[in-house]
Amino acid sequence: MINQELLKIGKGRTVIRRLFEYGKERRKAGEPVYDFSLGNPNVQPPACVNEALARIATEHRDSLHEYTLGPGYESTRQAVADDLNRRFGLELGYANIFMTCGASPGLRAAFEALRERKEDEIVILSPYFPEYPLFINNAGATPIIVPCKDDLTPDFDALKKAINENTKAVIVNSPNNPSGIVYDEKTRKQLVAVLEEKQAELGRPLVMITDEPYRELVYDVPDHCFMADYDNTILCYSYSKSLSLPGERIGYVAVNPKMQNAEDMYWALSGAIRMLGYVCAPAIFQKVVEECASARPNIEQYSKNRNLLHGELTRIGFECVKPDGAFYLCLKAKDGNSVRVSDVAKKLGILIVPCDEFGAKGFVRIAYCVKEETIKESIPAFEKLYELLNE
Amino acid sequence: MINQELLKIGKGRTVIRRLFEYGKERRKAGEPVYDFSLGNPNVQPPACVNEALARIATEHRDSLHEYTLGPGYESTRQAVADDLNRRFGLELGYANIFMTCGASPGLRAAFEALRERKEDEIVILSPYFPEYPLFINNAGATPIIVPCKDDLTPDFDALKKAINENTKAVIVNSPNNPSGIVYDEKTRKQLVAVLEEKQAELGRPLVMITDEPYRELVYDVPDHCFMADYDNTILCYSYSKSLSLPGERIGYVAVNPKMQNAEDMYWALSGAIRMLGYVCAPAIFQKVVEECASARPNIEQYSKNRNLLHGELTRIGFECVKPDGAFYLCLKAKDGNSVRVSDVAKKLGILIVPCDEFGAKGFVRIAYCVKEETIKESIPAFEKLYELLNE
Repeated sequence: MINQELLKIGKGRTVIRRLFEYGKERRKAGEPVYDFSLGNPNVQPPACVNEALARIATEHRDSLHEYTLGPGYESTRQAVADDLNRRFGLELGYANIFMTCGASPGLRAAFEALRERKEDEIVILSPYFPEYPLFINNAGATPIIVPCKDDLTPDFDALKKAINENTKAVIVNSPNNPSGIVYDEKTRKQLVAVLEEKQAELGRPLVMITDEPYRELVYDVPDHCFMADYDNTILCYSYSKSLSLPGERIGYVAVNPKMQNAEDMYWALSGAIRMLGYVCAPAIFQKVVEECASARPNIEQYSKNRNLLHGELTRIGFECVKPDGAFYLCLKAKDGNSVRVSDVAKKLGILIVPCDEFGAKGFVRIAYCVKEETIKESIPAFEKLYELLNE
Repeated sequence: MINQELLKIGKGRTVIRRLFEYGKERRKAGEPVYDFSLGNPNVQPPACVNEALARIATEHRDSLHEYTLGPGYESTRQAVADDLNRRFGLELGYANIFMTCGASPGLRAAFEALRERKEDEIVILSPYFPEYPLFINNAGATPIIVPCKDDLTPDFDALKKAINENTKAVIVNSPNNPSGIVYDEKTRKQLVAVLEEKQAELGRPLVMITDEPYRELVYDVPDHCFMADYDNTILCYSYSKSLSLPGERIGYVAVNPKMQNAEDMYWALSGAIRMLGYVCAPAIFQKVVEECASARPNIEQYSKNRNLLHGELTRIGFECVKPDGAFYLCLKAKDGNSVRVSDVAKKLGILIVPCDEFGAKGFVRIAYCVKEETIKESIPAFEKLYELLNE
C-alpha cells in the first residue's frame, strides 16, 4: 500500500534531528547544552527586511496575496538580476530568473530537467549537502560522489576520472557546507578547466549546477558567483542564510543566458517545478526580496564567532579546517572516528555532527551560527572533550 | 541535454494563461475585459488574517523566520486539528497534520507515497483539476479518468468499473473545480458505498484522496470534510481560497488516524514532501494559520455574485449548472463546442475557459471571484454572446 523507500526516508531521523532531540531532553533535565548542530542563522535579518516586511504586511494592498506568475513577479526577478549583474558583471534579465521556495526546489528541478535516461549521472564534489544524492536518486538519475582531499579541498584528478559519457552535470557548493571552504581564484580556474576539457571531449554541454546559499557569508575574501566563470551554469540560490529567512522559503534558480539552449533549459526547469507541486514562491517574500535584493547579512557577528571558535579550538589542540565562509567549521577526529567525537561531545552537552555522510570522512561539523556566549561558555567543555579523546 | 517532457510542460501555456495574456493586450488597447478566467479570490482575507500578519511581521520575534520542523510548528498543527475536530467530529492530533505549501504538494506527495509499482493507478472523478493527471504521471503512476454524467454529477457505475486490482486511490474534489457542484449527503453515501464495496472485494485499503480547498466556500448547504465519511482518507487542503492567500502557499495534508497504517502513511508523505524539495511551509503563514484556523471567508460576496450571474445567464437563455460551492459556474455549449463559446466570448472581452480538459466536455467555466461590477457590466456582452451563438 505504501512506497517503502519514501517511508524509510520519512521515518529516517537524520543525525542532526537526533542530536536536536537529545538536546531537548538535556535542557529539560537542566543540563547545559551547547548546540552547534543546526544551520539556523542566529543573526537577525538585515534591517531592510524587517522594515519591508512590516510595511508590506500592514499596507493591505488589494492584490498582495494573489497568485503570482509561476516564475514570480517580473519586478522581483528584475531586481535580483540587476543585483547579480552589478556585482558579478553578468548579463541576466528577469527572464533568466525563476523565484523558488529556497534553493532545494531549484536543485531538485535541475536534476529533473537534465535527466533524459536512467543512466544519466550527476557528479557531486565532496564535501556535500547530504540531500543531493537523495534528490538525484529521487529524480531518477544516479549520483556520483567524488571524494575530496584529506584537507577537504576538491580533488580535480578524481573529478576528471568521474566524468564520463553519462555525466550531465557537476554540483559545486562554495562557500561549502560542511567545511566552510571557499574556492579561491586558482581553484575556480582549475574547476573550469576540467569542465571545459571534458565538455570538449564529450562534444556537448556539461552543466555546472552551483548551489550558492552561503555566497554572501565570506570573511576576508570576496564573494563570488560561479555563473561568471562558466557558460553552461544553473545557479541555485536561497535567501535563507544571507537574509536570515530559512523558514520562509524564498530563493531562485537562474539559467545563464549564455548556456546552450538557455531558454529551453529555463522552461524545462519551469515544467519540473510545476510538476513537483510548486505553484509560486511566497508572494510576500517575493516583494521583500524585490526591495532588499542588495541587502547584505551582518557578517561581523559570524566572523567574530569564527575567529573566537577557531582560535580557542586550535589553542586547545584540535586540528581544524579554518573556514573562509558559511558558518561551519570542520574539526578533525585524530583517529578518524568522527562518530566517537560526536558521541563523547554529546555527553558534555556539545552537539556537533559527524560529517561522514557529508563526504568529509573523519570530521565533525560545528555550526557557529550561535550566540557568542554559547561559544564562550562551551570552551571548558571542549577542553574536557580534548582530554577525554586523548586519554 | 534536456528532458523533453518537462520542457513541453514548462513551455505549454495553459488555456487560462493564454486568455490572461489576451486580456492584457485588450486592456492595453483600451477595450473592455470581463475576466472570469482565474481562481484568484477577489474577496479580501478575513480581518483576523490581516491583523495577525501585521502584528507578527512587526513583532520581530527572535525566532520568527527560523526553519520549522518539516511537518510544521506543533502548535499550528494542533490548532488545525482542533478546528477540524470541533467542526466535523474528527479525532485528529497534531501528529496527523503536515503543513504544506498549499494543496498541490499534498496531492503530489500522496501520489508518490502510494506508488509502489508502475502499474499503480489513481482514479479521478470528473470533472477535475487538470493538474491531477499530470502530477500522477510525474509520480510514476497512471491516471484513470472516470467520466461524469451529462449534468456534471459523478457517475458511480463508471467509477465501479474503473476500480481494479491496480487501483490505489480515488480523488474526490467537492466543492468542485470547475463545476461548483457540492456532493450532498446522498451522493457522499453512494461514493462511500462504492469505495467500501471495492475495498472489500480487493481485500486491502482503497484510499480516498480528498482535495478540499473550496470546503468553506458553500452557499445554502453545510460545509463538509470527507474524512468524516471514510477511514482510509488522505485530506489535502489549502488556505488559498478560504483565507484568500493563494500566493502565500499555505495548506496541509492530513492522514486519517483511523486509516490502516496511518502512521506509516504519514511518514511516507513526509518522505515524499522532503524528496520533492520542500523543507517546511512558510513559517510566518504557519503562525497566521495558528491564530486564524477558525476564521471563515466572506461568503456573502461570492453568494451575491453567484445569484446575480446565475440569474442573469439563465434569464438570457443560457443553460448553466447552478453551483452550491466554490466560485465557478459551468455554462453549457448548446452544440457541445465549448472552444467556440470561449472564442466568440473572447472577442466580446469575456474571458471564460473551455472545460474539456477538466473532464466537463461541452462546458465553459466562469470564475465569478470578481467584483460585482464586473459581472453587472458584463451582462450586455453575455447577451451579445447568446445572440452570436444562436445566429
